[in-house]
Amino acid sequence: MHSIIGGRSAMSEEKAVIKVAALCGSLRKASFNRGLLRAAIELSKEQITGLHVEFIDTSSLPMLNTDLEQNGRFPPEVEEFRQKILEADCCFFASPDYNYSVTPLLKNALDWGSRPPNVWAGKAAAVVTAGGGGGRAQYHLRQIGVFLDLHFINKPEFYLNAFQPPVKFNDDGDLIDSSARERVKDVLLSLQDLTLRLQGNKS
Amino acid sequence: MHSIIGGRSAMSEEKAVIKVAALCGSLRKASFNRGLLRAAIELSKEQITGLHVEFIDTSSLPMLNTDLEQNGRFPPEVEEFRQKILEADCCFFASPDYNYSVTPLLKNALDWGSRPPNVWAGKAAAVVTAGGGGGRAQYHLRQIGVFLDLHFINKPEFYLNAFQPPVKFNDDGDLIDSSARERVKDVLLSLQDLTLRLQGNKS
Amino acid sequence: MHSIIGGRSAMSEEKAVIKVAALCGSLRKASFNRGLLRAAIELSKEQITGLHVEFIDTSSLPMLNTDLEQNGRFPPEVEEFRQKILEADCCFFASPDYNYSVTPLLKNALDWGSRPPNVWAGKAAAVVTAGGGGGRAQYHLRQIGVFLDLHFINKPEFYLNAFQPPVKFNDDGDLIDSSARERVKDVLLSLQDLTLRLQGNKS
Amino acid sequence: MHSIIGGRSAMSEEKAVIKVAALCGSLRKASFNRGLLRAAIELSKEQITGLHVEFIDTSSLPMLNTDLEQNGRFPPEVEEFRQKILEADCCFFASPDYNYSVTPLLKNALDWGSRPPNVWAGKAAAVVTAGGGGGRAQYHLRQIGVFLDLHFINKPEFYLNAFQPPVKFNDDGDLIDSSARERVKDVLLSLQDLTLRLQGNKS
Repeated sequence: MHSIIGGRSAMSEEKAVIKVAALCGSLRKASFNRGLLRAAIELSKEQITGLHVEFIDTSSLPMLNTDLEQNGRFPPEVEEFRQKILEADCCFFASPDYNYSVTPLLKNALDWGSRPPNVWAGKAAAVVTAGGGGGRAQYHLRQIGVFLDLHFINKPEFYLNAFQPPVKFNDDGDLIDSSARERVKDVLLSLQDLTLRLQGNKS
Repeated sequence: MHSIIGGRSAMSEEKAVIKVAALCGSLRKASFNRGLLRAAIELSKEQITGLHVEFIDTSSLPMLNTDLEQNGRFPPEVEEFRQKILEADCCFFASPDYNYSVTPLLKNALDWGSRPPNVWAGKAAAVVTAGGGGGRAQYHLRQIGVFLDLHFINKPEFYLNAFQPPVKFNDDGDLIDSSARERVKDVLLSLQDLTLRLQGNKS
Repeated sequence: MHSIIGGRSAMSEEKAVIKVAALCGSLRKASFNRGLLRAAIELSKEQITGLHVEFIDTSSLPMLNTDLEQNGRFPPEVEEFRQKILEADCCFFASPDYNYSVTPLLKNALDWGSRPPNVWAGKAAAVVTAGGGGGRAQYHLRQIGVFLDLHFINKPEFYLNAFQPPVKFNDDGDLIDSSARERVKDVLLSLQDLTLRLQGNKS
Repeated sequence: MHSIIGGRSAMSEEKAVIKVAALCGSLRKASFNRGLLRAAIELSKEQITGLHVEFIDTSSLPMLNTDLEQNGRFPPEVEEFRQKILEADCCFFASPDYNYSVTPLLKNALDWGSRPPNVWAGKAAAVVTAGGGGGRAQYHLRQIGVFLDLHFINKPEFYLNAFQPPVKFNDDGDLIDSSARERVKDVLLSLQDLTLRLQGNKS
C-alpha cells in the first residue's frame, strides 16, 4: 500500500517505469513479427502507463562461437547487446515459427546472452507470434527459458494467423487489425503485472 | 510495507504459512518419487518456516472422462481433490519419467483439476524427479503448466539418478542422501519465494 | 520386385495385409477422436487395399502400477492388450489434446505396452487429432515414440478443428466432412507405405 | 532379392553406397561435437561397408533472411549447401545442447534447407551429442524434423557426457574413448539400416 503523499512515493512511481527489451526473430524488412513489435511499442506509448518498450537490434551479432570470447571479453556488438538486456526489467519476444522451432537469429541472441554471467536471469518475459502455420516455436522458447531463468507469462498466449481474413497487416507490415492490437496490449499488461510481482513491487 | 505493530500484522504473519499441495506421479509403494515427497514434508516441518506441505492422494480419481460430469458436478473423489488444490497456495510435483513424459496418474490429476473452473490457475509450482533415466518428463509438465497457468520455478532444477552411488534411498524408499535432501530443501525454498512474489507478499 | 506368377507370390500378397492397431485417447461416448477412428476403419474397408484397422479398447486397463506385475505376469487385461499390439504391424492413434499433452488414457496404454518386452518396438505409427484447440499433444506423443521405438509418419499431419464450419461431425460423432475424410485416408496410405518400407516389403 | 550375376547387379551394388551429409552445430575449433563427426567419418571408412560420411561446412551460410532470395535464387553459399544435402541419402547431425535447444548455426542450416523445395524431405537422419549437460536439444531437433520430413532413427540414442571420467576426447577434440566410438558406430549402422529400408532397398 503506497502512501499517497510525499517525495518517496513520487520517486517510487518514477522508478516503476518498466524497461522492456523487445527482440524480433525475423530479419525480413516486411516481417509480420517485426510489425507486432512496432505495435507493442506504439501501444505502450499511447495506452499503457509505466512501460517503456525498446527494440533491441540483434542483426549484427556474429554467429555464436565461444572462440570469439577473448580474455573474458565478448566481441563489441555482443557486449553492447548484453548490456542492453542487463538494463531491461523484462523481455518481449516476437518469435516466428520456422520449422516448428525458434529462428536462428533469435536463438543466437538468446545464446550470446546466456554466456556467463547470464544476462536473462530472473526476468519476466512474453512471446508473440504472427505467421501462417502454428505457434509451436513458443514452447521451444519456453523450454529454453527454463535454463535462461526467464519467467514467461502464461496468459494470454498470442498467436496470430497473418493470412486469415480480415486483413491483419498492411503492406508495410504494420498491424492494423484492432482486435489483434487489443490482444497485444493484453500481453503487455500481463507482462507488466508479472514483472512487478517478480520484482516485489506489487502491493 | 507491513506495519510492525498491531494485531492485524500478527494475523498476516500467520496467514503467511504457505500451503503446498504435493502430488506424486507413481503408485508404487516403494516409489523413489514418493520418497522425495516424504523428504519434502519432513524438511518443511523441520527446517523451513512458513511452509506446510501436504500429500494429496490422487489414486482414487477415475480415469478422466467428461461424461462423468453430471449437472455441473464432478464425481465425489474429483470434487474433493479439486477442493484441496483450490485451497493450496502452490504445488510440488514428484514426477517420474515414464517413456520421456509424465505418468498417466499425474496427467489424470492435472486434467481433472483443469476442468472449468481450472483449480491450478495462478499458482506457483515446482517439480522433482528421481529415476534411472533422464528428466525429460519435466519439460512436458512445464508445457502442460502453460495452459493450466502454473508458474514453475526455474531454479534449481532437480533430477536425481536413483541408481548412481552413493545410495540415495533405503529399502523403504526414504531419501537418505544428505546432499540430495539439501537440494530438495533448496527447491522448497525457491518455491516458497516464487509463491510469495506471485501473491504480492514479497517486500 | 515380385514375381507375377507362382504360389509363393500369392502367399506374400496375402501376408501383405497390414494390421493396424487403432487406439483412442478419449473415453467420451461422442468423442470426435473416436469418430476419427471409426472413419479410419470404414475408409480402410471401403477404399484401401491391404489395410485392416482394428479398434483396441484400452478402457479396462488399470492405472499403471508396476506393483501389479507379479511373477513376470501382467494383469489379464494388460496381457490381452499387449498381445493385440504385438500382433499388429503398425499403430494409429486418435489423440485428443488435453492441456497441451496426451490424455491419461492414452499414456496409460502406451506405458503398459512399454513394459519389457516393449511391444511397440519397431512399428510404424500415425496420429490424428480432432479438437477445438491446437495439436500440441502430437509432439509429446512423438517424443514418447522415440523411447518406445515407434516410427511416426511425418506427412501428412492431421489436425482437425472440430468446431470450425462447415460441420465436421454429426450428433453421433461420425466424421461427415468429405474433405476431412479424404485427409484421414491420406494418413492411412502414408502409414501403409511407411509400414511396408520398414518391413522391407517395398519394392 | 538381388540377382547375384550380371552388370545390373554390380551397378546396384555400387549405388548401394549411402552418402551421409554430416553437419555440426558448433563452430568451436576444439568442439567435442565436431570430434564426434570426425570419429563418424573415420569409422565409416575403416569399419563400415557402404557408407560414405562427408562433412558439410555450414559456417559461411548467411543468417536466414528470405529477403536474400532473389528471382527464385538463393545466395551462392546457400545454393551450394542445398545441392550437397540434395545429393545425400541421409543426414548425421552432431548437435550440441545450447540452453536446452539446438544451436543457431545448426538451425540456420536446417532452415535454409527447408526453403521450397525442401531438400531434407524423406531422408533418414541420426543425431549425436557431446556435452556437459543433458541431451534435450535432440528432441527439439526431432520436432523440427517432423516438418522437414526427416526420419530419425530411434535407437540407439547417443549422448556423451564429455567431462565424466574416463577421458573421452584428447586435446585436439578427437574422440579417444573406445566404448564411445563403438556407440557412434552403432548409430551409423542404425542410420544405414533405416536409410536402406526407407529407400526400399532392404530385402
